[in-house]
Amino acid sequence: MQFHHHGYVSGDPRVQPAAGVGIDRPTQVPDEVDVLIVGSGPAGMLAAAQLSQFPGITTRIVERRPGRLAIGQADGIQARSVETFQAFGFAERIIAEAYRITEMAFWKPDTENPANIVRTARTLDDPAGISEFPHLIVNQARVLDYFAEVMAMSPTRMTPDYGLEFRGLEVTGEGEYPVTVTLAHTAGPDEGRERTVRAKYVVGADGARSKVRASIGCTMAGDQANHAWGVMDVLASTDFPDIRLKCAIQSHDGGSILLIPREGGHLFRMYVDLGEVPADDHGAVRKTTIEQIIAKANAIIHPYTLDVRDVAWHSVYEVGHRLTDRFDDVLSQELGNRTPRVFITGDACHTHSAKAGQGMNVSMQDGFNIGWKLGHVLEGRSPESLLSTYSAERQVVAKNLIDFDKVWSTLMAKKPEEFENPSELEDFYVRTAEFPAGFMTEYAPSMIVAEATHQHLATGFPVGKRFKSAPVVRVCDTNPLHLGHQAKADGRWRIYVFADAAAPVSGQQNAGQQGTGTPTDHFAEWIANSPESPLAATPSGADIDAWFDVKVIYQQDHTNIDINAVPAAFKPQVGPFQLTYLEKVFATDPASDIFELRGIDRGGVVVVVRPDQYVANILPLTATAELAAFFAPLLPDRLRSA
Amino acid sequence: MQFHHHGYVSGDPRVQPAAGVGIDRPTQVPDEVDVLIVGSGPAGMLAAAQLSQFPGITTRIVERRPGRLAIGQADGIQARSVETFQAFGFAERIIAEAYRITEMAFWKPDTENPANIVRTARTLDDPAGISEFPHLIVNQARVLDYFAEVMAMSPTRMTPDYGLEFRGLEVTGEGEYPVTVTLAHTAGPDEGRERTVRAKYVVGADGARSKVRASIGCTMAGDQANHAWGVMDVLASTDFPDIRLKCAIQSHDGGSILLIPREGGHLFRMYVDLGEVPADDHGAVRKTTIEQIIAKANAIIHPYTLDVRDVAWHSVYEVGHRLTDRFDDVLSQELGNRTPRVFITGDACHTHSAKAGQGMNVSMQDGFNIGWKLGHVLEGRSPESLLSTYSAERQVVAKNLIDFDKVWSTLMAKKPEEFENPSELEDFYVRTAEFPAGFMTEYAPSMIVAEATHQHLATGFPVGKRFKSAPVVRVCDTNPLHLGHQAKADGRWRIYVFADAAAPVSGQQNAGQQGTGTPTDHFAEWIANSPESPLAATPSGADIDAWFDVKVIYQQDHTNIDINAVPAAFKPQVGPFQLTYLEKVFATDPASDIFELRGIDRGGVVVVVRPDQYVANILPLTATAELAAFFAPLLPDRLRSA
Repeated sequence: MQFHHHGYVSGDPRVQPAAGVGIDRPTQVPDEVDVLIVGSGPAGMLAAAQLSQFPGITTRIVERRPGRLAIGQADGIQARSVETFQAFGFAERIIAEAYRITEMAFWKPDTENPANIVRTARTLDDPAGISEFPHLIVNQARVLDYFAEVMAMSPTRMTPDYGLEFRGLEVTGEGEYPVTVTLAHTAGPDEGRERTVRAKYVVGADGARSKVRASIGCTMAGDQANHAWGVMDVLASTDFPDIRLKCAIQSHDGGSILLIPREGGHLFRMYVDLGEVPADDHGAVRKTTIEQIIAKANAIIHPYTLDVRDVAWHSVYEVGHRLTDRFDDVLSQELGNRTPRVFITGDACHTHSAKAGQGMNVSMQDGFNIGWKLGHVLEGRSPESLLSTYSAERQVVAKNLIDFDKVWSTLMAKKPEEFENPSELEDFYVRTAEFPAGFMTEYAPSMIVAEATHQHLATGFPVGKRFKSAPVVRVCDTNPLHLGHQAKADGRWRIYVFADAAAPVSGQQNAGQQGTGTPTDHFAEWIANSPESPLAATPSGADIDAWFDVKVIYQQDHTNIDINAVPAAFKPQVGPFQLTYLEKVFATDPASDIFELRGIDRGGVVVVVRPDQYVANILPLTATAELAAFFAPLLPDRLRSA
Repeated sequence: MQFHHHGYVSGDPRVQPAAGVGIDRPTQVPDEVDVLIVGSGPAGMLAAAQLSQFPGITTRIVERRPGRLAIGQADGIQARSVETFQAFGFAERIIAEAYRITEMAFWKPDTENPANIVRTARTLDDPAGISEFPHLIVNQARVLDYFAEVMAMSPTRMTPDYGLEFRGLEVTGEGEYPVTVTLAHTAGPDEGRERTVRAKYVVGADGARSKVRASIGCTMAGDQANHAWGVMDVLASTDFPDIRLKCAIQSHDGGSILLIPREGGHLFRMYVDLGEVPADDHGAVRKTTIEQIIAKANAIIHPYTLDVRDVAWHSVYEVGHRLTDRFDDVLSQELGNRTPRVFITGDACHTHSAKAGQGMNVSMQDGFNIGWKLGHVLEGRSPESLLSTYSAERQVVAKNLIDFDKVWSTLMAKKPEEFENPSELEDFYVRTAEFPAGFMTEYAPSMIVAEATHQHLATGFPVGKRFKSAPVVRVCDTNPLHLGHQAKADGRWRIYVFADAAAPVSGQQNAGQQGTGTPTDHFAEWIANSPESPLAATPSGADIDAWFDVKVIYQQDHTNIDINAVPAAFKPQVGPFQLTYLEKVFATDPASDIFELRGIDRGGVVVVVRPDQYVANILPLTATAELAAFFAPLLPDRLRSA
């Protein structure tokens, strides 16, 4: 954590100095805003948290509820989400309070006595070590709390605007604020009163019944019928031995339960399958009582029993597999002619079962994806065309999610005798683990994802997939660290320079030779000083690493690196005191060689990573022209015309 | 983290429900308090944080300063302190913001060109893996912030009472509140006004010039002369390559620097040795200017240079090695005739150099030691005689500290040519690493530390030393965990039952046999149900684990343990819903066998650990009478007479 470079900080370093629109931020939503986010669920809050890091941008997030969410539906947190929390600075805290999934158990009818269930399998949750982050269960309400804290401690001092409901919007296309939004107060003295806000951009994160979606004419397509579950968060006494394990439980008469232990101990959630809802159900399934859900659960777990002592929350919910045709307001016939002004995210775009624990996670990545893009466009870092990549990238992800969830939820609904082999369910769970962990997203080539021409130079960093961290050693303080964890969600591009085989050494014999000899030295010289370098676009007055965070990783261990011989490009002068930033220089950890682990060419490689942590490009050290060409369309005209 | 057992908790689980004196806690210090702590430094704040967990006890902590400490002197955090922070719930956060020491470098005059310094050695900070916790540097002000947060979130909702100065006290010995304390307001409308508070106990944590110490007639003995250092926390530009490493730097002319990089990057501290202060100095050394300190630092690090850009803090300080004759108000001739009413802690008891980074750490352990003892006596759990163990235990620790620091600071002050061998300094540093890490404290036998009669049953848990954690697997949720990290600083005794070799299994063949067969089962039966069991002292109406936290660790891996066959003693019913607490049952992690790691006898062992994490007793499973006899003098009469 870096915080003194503007002078000594005595208090909580997580509280960033207020800046820009965060100074004297108005308590009421102004009449004109840069970004209006509708809905404070996971997608909306992540987009807001990302935008809160841009002090020049006025972002407001409106929420119909009068205050903080007290208890939310979602609770599954993929490793990819924990990785994201790390970038926002609260992973260690949410891990400490969450339930951690390390194994899953499968229970089925005893073949000798089918009225009884027996444990037929245990599977490790992440046997292959997909991620260094854990798989967690924690209520959505707490996830939102943490993002609210990130926003409040950000330079913009953002807080959600509670008690404001979205009524409708019109994209006028006129003026600087071309979207006119009608809101209404849902609480307080102005309850019911409507007001108008004009925005440059609107993000709809208003859930499965999204009015923002309706207002831009998107349609949801998918299943004809819904599937219903009785869900309960309860405190209970039970002799079911795996009550603190995630379990898939199937009884002989086709009943099934997904059991999710919850954070804080004792509390657990059960999803009790209520089956397909017939078209003529007319809401009858929703009248299922908590007593009926408990009775059904007891029947399924026989010979064990469940004595529910306290019901924290319960619901009957119905959902189908549905996907919207587009994620923004640009009709297919308009593509290429105009850029979007309104976006939809999360449940507004995709609905599916809760059984794979995916919804909140994919929604957050929707928010992460749109957040930095809006930030870059509104700050003038990038052209508006960047915004078109949001729908293009995220719709594919949502489609894959729905396909996966269909297979998984169908498998879980199968009766025991319908399986081709007894371990079909758990085999599928283990085989596909990378998908539900959140790491199968792979963005296609676009203006922000290069063709994987040079993929062979770094086989462990697939272009389009998220940058998979690995251990390194920071040279200046010899700290063993995870390289990826040094990248905060601050909206910056990362340029990782994996050095060629030469060590940086100075001394008598090569005094004056610093930074002039090796391919790494040449690259460093170019990126720091060439007018073609993307860093040349950095606004004057800002630190040279304000837009691009350039780090170097040498192949040697830290004792063989002379930090005084490392090129200046990797040790920028920052802040009002022009202090030398030494913490961008890394060595290889001999016990865990990043070059080996990620298949990095020993001749040296440049890895470009997006602000949302996806690998954008892989290049040899010599491909400076190619690097310049990649960034040219993404940067302000002054560079492109340079 | 456990928090739902009284019902669903929606908000931050670190905020405990207010209880007892925390409900409607008065903002002003009342006229009568149970414990008055004087001074909000590390010792006082730890004692306060520990007492804040006792909702029946009115503890107030007064501080002369008008508010939070902005910048403190101390910054070295031993692994033992981080272990303590873990028990108070904030280790993961302070680690995230601290500087972590992984190596130390030693710089000395170049033998070929003595005017230049060269790096002569690097030493790993913890080569032997003494602790699973890191060695940190973080300003004392932040440590105090975290303890203040613990107090504020505790059931008692404690906050320091700023702007109140200690003027004097009298131990009247009369009535329920036998200590009369005179305080004075140092700020606000009542500035200068005195007031009187009557207390049951007073803890002096008011620093090296302690007035509490003076008021009970303690004397400080030790060095005749002081040693002086110029200290500065600065932001600077420098070519000294190890500026982000802890360094001991010695120049050819006898100058020396201890360099401590600080949390947050860029900032570092230098202790520049100003030598022994002559008796006739009359404060002249304190007139050393920051410019002189910087000039001296530049001379020492030649050929490197230091361009200081910002001075966050600087000071010249003088200190000698001094120790008080006792840590409480009981004169040696009164020992055994009366129990103490006034205690002193931290710098009030012991002063020494800052060079070993010990002061804050030892002070915190003073506070941890007295905190739970006052809690137990005031709650009526234990007799007043328990309080006599504080001075007895902590004075030995302080004496050892001062002896260590004398050797270390003398070594650091030696001129290069005075060393017997060139690596004497770094050899000493490596050889003695366990002491400065905080793990050499070993309390002598007393009413709370048994004779080590059965030490051979668990060689890795030396009686009198702090319980060294090891990995285990929690059975109910298969989570790999550190056993010791499950023990919070909640004032409870821990009884760890390391099971004999039999696995707990139930089933057809031994139905009805549960908990009746093995030595572990017999012990479980005794501790849960015998009138001789220490648990029998637990107040009626409280959960059975309110005073004693009993955990079991089996020798098998978790897949071979049937939690339904584990004796009820290890699965208590807790809270208003009488839920079964499953998280006290542990399995051995086959990859890291705690029985092997800690030399635990396979026949089964009971390890008793104090609320401040020190091992109190080691016993075989059959030694129930011995266990009862150990606790009998520590528990209320109703047990002893039972």
